[in-house]
Amino acid sequence: MNSAKSYIKQHKDRFISELIDLLKIPSISADSAYEKDVRAMAEKVKSSLEEAGCDLVEICETPGYPIVYGEKLVDPKLPTILVYGHYDVQPPDPLDLWHSPPFDPVIKKTELHPDGAIFARGSCDDKGQMYMHVKALEYMTRTSQLPCNVKFMIEGEEEVGSESLGWFVARNQEKLANDVILISDTGMIANDIPSITTGLRGLSYVEVEVTGPNRDLHSGLYGGAVANPINVLTKMIASLHDENNHITIPGFYDDVEELTAEERAKMAEAPFNKEAYKQALDIEDVYGEKGYTTNERNSIRPTLDVNGIWGGYTGEGAKTVIASKAYAKISMRLVPNQNWEEITQLFKNHFESIAPKGVKVKVKPHHGGQAYVTPIDSLGYRAAEKAYEVTFGKTPIPQRSGGSIPIVALFEKELKSKTILMGFGLDSDAIHSPNEHFGVWNYLKGIETIPQFYHYFTQMSE
Amino acid sequence: MNSAKSYIKQHKDRFISELIDLLKIPSISADSAYEKDVRAMAEKVKSSLEEAGCDLVEICETPGYPIVYGEKLVDPKLPTILVYGHYDVQPPDPLDLWHSPPFDPVIKKTELHPDGAIFARGSCDDKGQMYMHVKALEYMTRTSQLPCNVKFMIEGEEEVGSESLGWFVARNQEKLANDVILISDTGMIANDIPSITTGLRGLSYVEVEVTGPNRDLHSGLYGGAVANPINVLTKMIASLHDENNHITIPGFYDDVEELTAEERAKMAEAPFNKEAYKQALDIEDVYGEKGYTTNERNSIRPTLDVNGIWGGYTGEGAKTVIASKAYAKISMRLVPNQNWEEITQLFKNHFESIAPKGVKVKVKPHHGGQAYVTPIDSLGYRAAEKAYEVTFGKTPIPQRSGGSIPIVALFEKELKSKTILMGFGLDSDAIHSPNEHFGVWNYLKGIETIPQFYHYFTQMSE
Repeated sequence: MNSAKSYIKQHKDRFISELIDLLKIPSISADSAYEKDVRAMAEKVKSSLEEAGCDLVEICETPGYPIVYGEKLVDPKLPTILVYGHYDVQPPDPLDLWHSPPFDPVIKKTELHPDGAIFARGSCDDKGQMYMHVKALEYMTRTSQLPCNVKFMIEGEEEVGSESLGWFVARNQEKLANDVILISDTGMIANDIPSITTGLRGLSYVEVEVTGPNRDLHSGLYGGAVANPINVLTKMIASLHDENNHITIPGFYDDVEELTAEERAKMAEAPFNKEAYKQALDIEDVYGEKGYTTNERNSIRPTLDVNGIWGGYTGEGAKTVIASKAYAKISMRLVPNQNWEEITQLFKNHFESIAPKGVKVKVKPHHGGQAYVTPIDSLGYRAAEKAYEVTFGKTPIPQRSGGSIPIVALFEKELKSKTILMGFGLDSDAIHSPNEHFGVWNYLKGIETIPQFYHYFTQMSE
Repeated sequence: MNSAKSYIKQHKDRFISELIDLLKIPSISADSAYEKDVRAMAEKVKSSLEEAGCDLVEICETPGYPIVYGEKLVDPKLPTILVYGHYDVQPPDPLDLWHSPPFDPVIKKTELHPDGAIFARGSCDDKGQMYMHVKALEYMTRTSQLPCNVKFMIEGEEEVGSESLGWFVARNQEKLANDVILISDTGMIANDIPSITTGLRGLSYVEVEVTGPNRDLHSGLYGGAVANPINVLTKMIASLHDENNHITIPGFYDDVEELTAEERAKMAEAPFNKEAYKQALDIEDVYGEKGYTTNERNSIRPTLDVNGIWGGYTGEGAKTVIASKAYAKISMRLVPNQNWEEITQLFKNHFESIAPKGVKVKVKPHHGGQAYVTPIDSLGYRAAEKAYEVTFGKTPIPQRSGGSIPIVALFEKELKSKTILMGFGLDSDAIHSPNEHFGVWNYLKGIETIPQFYHYFTQMSE
């Protein structure tokens, strides 16, 4: 079984260049201008799965972007692993902060990636991590070491809410039947501190529009006499947090899971260097909800962040205008027990209720998903633990993450199986940011670790 | 002297088509992409002054856009009127709200302009009103009725703070020597309620930048744990007004001129229909500083308005990002006795002081100007009053305006002369907004009234 290392060594350059080819496709699901590229990317995933050894690969049309389904079924008596990933990427904005073009991948060494990292949008999230699974399959089929059945489900709408995936999963429960779901779309603490994500936050994403006067006005003639939608929007948003940075939406915390002192003490044992954290972000201090540590704030506590705001004149120079409209995109990260649809409704009711007379407010829900916590005593978790022990020489740490993969809760509900989140990226890989990258070492380590999971999961299922 | 009406009737179509030609030039001073157009506009002004009868016209270079100077000096013993105007215009954004292209003028009838109005950026502010003076001069020279000396000073940076004008005026006091300054860059109450603006607000315009982390971050991994610059900016801006909509910057009101109860009572006599005002803007209610009426809020009280705000993801769809930076353009309208440079400094000090740890704040002053109140017992004011009485058949009402023409205070300081603000636009003409327009009736009425001012000012100066 330990031939993986030598196979990877032999094919390393090809593995990298194949990934680079995928990274050149700007498969931005949020922007309809890139529809052709998103679809081209689905075709690329299909052919890569065929080449890696799948017996059947299909482009499954949905109301939105297609889902690529692939399978290699060796024996109905053996367990089945369902690999999930996504081929779409975040928009690359702001473009001017990239040191190299987002869809023109380059390999550069960094302090944390002395073997080099591939810089491109999607390198880590999720093309690189998804492709580790394709290359792990290639290794197992070419060396006749695939120990169980495998299915792939790679979607193209993860970055915009996975709406079509819910539609697809509900309609294909038999086809997708499995014993465990395996996802690499998260990170680990450090290259020498492997970890497995056991908790994910939920999400509610909304867009708000504040309309004041029916047209843009001269700020001299009307300034001070009518509600300025931008001033009003800033006041409304500001009021969503109190002086302790608690969220003020009535009912928002009602269902929040409160951790025990013991659980919080255990969390506090995870290595965290606040000085290094501040230095890496060039901030004078951290900031957040009173009474919680940084690690708690970004994992077990719900949050509300403005992701975008715009209104009025934003060009060069000055324009003395009172805009007719102002907008913001706002997302809330949720924790276990909070229902994202309820939270979206609470937000909408509250935001509309705090609008002063003189403006009209619209709240448009974008998408959302439930938070999720996975048990650490499941067969899948124990198999993953063993896999890391072989390839990293260390037992991985279970870790709650602040990010959201809304579909994990959906999978549990629709497919009745547990998900294992084996992520190989680092927090510093800048996913969703300019200069996203993925370490070459991490990419290859993932390809090496995944077959170990297949091995132990099959063995332990007997 | 009453040949003006018949001259205008005879040349009306040409007067309109000449103005339309000027309005086709996008002389947007705020945007350097239009530099060629701004300069082309200066040339047009030059030739129009020559054709109207000036003996000398010069394009005077400055550190910025040129100033067009023209003169017709008939007799050193006669008084000299200095006409000021500007040939630059506001940016037309947002373009999608225009019903016809901003630089493709069309004439359409409206409720308030039954004789038609010219729709184009700059039609009222200030090309149309500036050109009334050119055509009035043409009438007076062609009919040999120019009663005094006249100088023109038409600048190209009014919409961006008139910096070069200050430079030019300080260096050309002798050339610009005059007995009264005449400006048409304001409005009047209604076509049947002529008014003369006697007060203008000052202005301080700044741009602020809030920087949080050194790069855009994933809002799941960092959300709640670091200061989000957009959230922080909204909180900082929101805190600039208290619950009574008073501005909270320490010292902001220290020098504000407080009107007496009598003065306020007199102001309240000006016709104002609140229901019609709300209906015209499609707002449920007016909004502003507690304790003041709408007319007071937008004339005798200082204000603080956000004119533009931007940060994070503003494209289609959703992006779960914490932006590294957020920006806003903020302007304060000031009243007599407030010093704009002091206010800018107060703003800067205060805004920087309220930034929480975890963000860095930059305040960049753009431009500004002093407020101004003109006396109503001056020779110039009385001559203007008589001019309106002839052409409107009514005594004009003295009116405080909320807008700013920062250079009026400068003229008084540098040239030691009073300014008369004879504006012929209406508040509803949408200056600085989409669908700016200027009534054809108002345009021609201005051309008719201006020579009367020349006549009475010369007569009363004897």
